[in-house]
Amino acid sequence: MKRRSFIKKMGIGAAAVGTGLAARAVPAYAQKKYNWKMVTTWPPHFPALGEGADLFAKWVDEMSDGRLKITVYGGGELVPPLGVFDAVSQGTVEMGHGAAYYWAGKMPACQFFAAVPFGLNAQGLNAWILNGGGMKLWEETYAPFNVKPFLGGNTGVQAGGWFNKEIKTIDDYKGLKMRIPGLGGKVVKKAGGNAVLVAGGEIYTNLDRGVIDATEWVGPYHDLKMGFYKAAKYYYWPGWHEPGTGLEIIVGQKAWDSLPKDLQAIVKSAADRSNIWMLSEFEARNNAALQVLVNKHKVPVKQFPKGVLKNLKKLSGEVLSELAAKDAMSKKVYAAYSKFLKEASDWGQLTEEQYQTFKHL
Amino acid sequence: MKRRSFIKKMGIGAAAVGTGLAARAVPAYAQKKYNWKMVTTWPPHFPALGEGADLFAKWVDEMSDGRLKITVYGGGELVPPLGVFDAVSQGTVEMGHGAAYYWAGKMPACQFFAAVPFGLNAQGLNAWILNGGGMKLWEETYAPFNVKPFLGGNTGVQAGGWFNKEIKTIDDYKGLKMRIPGLGGKVVKKAGGNAVLVAGGEIYTNLDRGVIDATEWVGPYHDLKMGFYKAAKYYYWPGWHEPGTGLEIIVGQKAWDSLPKDLQAIVKSAADRSNIWMLSEFEARNNAALQVLVNKHKVPVKQFPKGVLKNLKKLSGEVLSELAAKDAMSKKVYAAYSKFLKEASDWGQLTEEQYQTFKHL
Repeated sequence: MKRRSFIKKMGIGAAAVGTGLAARAVPAYAQKKYNWKMVTTWPPHFPALGEGADLFAKWVDEMSDGRLKITVYGGGELVPPLGVFDAVSQGTVEMGHGAAYYWAGKMPACQFFAAVPFGLNAQGLNAWILNGGGMKLWEETYAPFNVKPFLGGNTGVQAGGWFNKEIKTIDDYKGLKMRIPGLGGKVVKKAGGNAVLVAGGEIYTNLDRGVIDATEWVGPYHDLKMGFYKAAKYYYWPGWHEPGTGLEIIVGQKAWDSLPKDLQAIVKSAADRSNIWMLSEFEARNNAALQVLVNKHKVPVKQFPKGVLKNLKKLSGEVLSELAAKDAMSKKVYAAYSKFLKEASDWGQLTEEQYQTFKHL
Repeated sequence: MKRRSFIKKMGIGAAAVGTGLAARAVPAYAQKKYNWKMVTTWPPHFPALGEGADLFAKWVDEMSDGRLKITVYGGGELVPPLGVFDAVSQGTVEMGHGAAYYWAGKMPACQFFAAVPFGLNAQGLNAWILNGGGMKLWEETYAPFNVKPFLGGNTGVQAGGWFNKEIKTIDDYKGLKMRIPGLGGKVVKKAGGNAVLVAGGEIYTNLDRGVIDATEWVGPYHDLKMGFYKAAKYYYWPGWHEPGTGLEIIVGQKAWDSLPKDLQAIVKSAADRSNIWMLSEFEARNNAALQVLVNKHKVPVKQFPKGVLKNLKKLSGEVLSELAAKDAMSKKVYAAYSKFLKEASDWGQLTEEQYQTFKHL
């Protein structure tokens, strides 16, 4: 008996064999299931940041109807927080979630895709990376490591930090022990300060005991939970060192290449959704937390004096020039970034800058 | 012969029958193909706006592996631009792309989801609608019409418009014939002006022949293409009447309910992707066009004097109060919108407002 005639006879044509095949042929690859691991630099389910990773996985699951399942791990659960990039690069796991500036030791250029002192804000970073040529440079920066980057979130303008010492002139940075990583830390060092690294869980105690004089963290939503207001006198603004920190979702190149086109499109789209969700979440939650800090806990909010910001901006320029001199890729990215920042500033002068004055009319 | 043993014997288990069924059962619905129509309020493939609709359809196609095909129609191709909402509401087509304020005649409350004079900018509107409770109110506003809304884009802060008359005091609006629709038009009327409606294709001629004294449109990227610089003396800033216009993607409730969960998730995600893409596109293109207008065509860029903006803001408050008094839904949405705007303004004072001063340090 020929297979075809048997199937006909047994009535297992469209009804049984073809459940789902009736409408069109289902390519084999389209039904393959993928179980992926995503390691993150955040504590598990960390507000906004870890939640962004969780939601990304949930959205991919929904869109793929369960064909791409991503299990999200907090920092340290599978690999240490700062081991995320290596784990993805080496193919130990398929995905990672963090911020590009954590990998500055490997490739200094990566910092332009996260946060630059006095650099692009969230709207500007999105425009540069997504529609202004930045993504091509980011891919080029990560390509030697077999890692593919996506922009997956933004914190918006961060807070300037918590201080137990008033900052009236740039000289007040002399000898200041401040927990501030990355390029911002380099600027503080140039100003004569002592930029130290303290793990998140130890900042409060260090601040409380006077081991450090100041710390930056994120913004009111996170800072309130950390209780910094109990250990510091002043809350300074704005976060000149991180005016719109971009978060990243990274995929190992081999894992990426193994995905069919539809799942690749789903991952890209879920990253964009995470990006807009996260900034919106920060915007919606930060102000409510600020009100609690100011009205309930009577936190004195202070602005860095204009003269201090002017000096910090000058020092930031020096830090960036030194960064650009490190390697060819940093030089190339710095040139593109600076050009876009200049244009975005000109444009912002007529638009968002004017908008911000409306509230004072 | 039992079916099971036969299949085993014939060797058509996993290999033949199971092509694709091996990994899991494929639900019949998941393979159903949907061919949808999306009508838009834009000329076909209109820069940024119509392109956003085209890309949305492309992304849905890619993510669904061709299971949800959306054919995009320019305004007038299937239904008139301002017939988009009705066509979706009545189920003539499944989807629409436009801006919520076009439907103000049906339900005045809809205007809060597009643009409000001196209202939320793009970042604020995203935060309010996506993470601040706005979406629930938007859904409630459209529910009586069986239409489901998604936020699908933003123009950013628009330009103030093209004028053949200088605006030095609020009295200069007296008798001014300006093409300006919506709430902005109501404000201009209150200031003594004559807010007129002119179709896009006729604005240039009307401006050139002095039929109107002024017009607003979008921003440099679009205004340059329209050639307004050849027919007007001054380019005014900022676009107080549209400080961050949200674009919408709408789906008929019946069409929406007919989609399986995975395709629903894909539509939602593609809308978010369109949203962030469009603002990034506007940001990246507008400044380049501004440079051409200013440097090549020597367009004089002028800012509305502070006193004029102060008066326009006062009049806008009156227009919004009148709007809120129209019906219960407008009152409810206005209350929620105002509360969020106040919080976003407080928060912006410490963050984005400070950020905008960096360029002047």
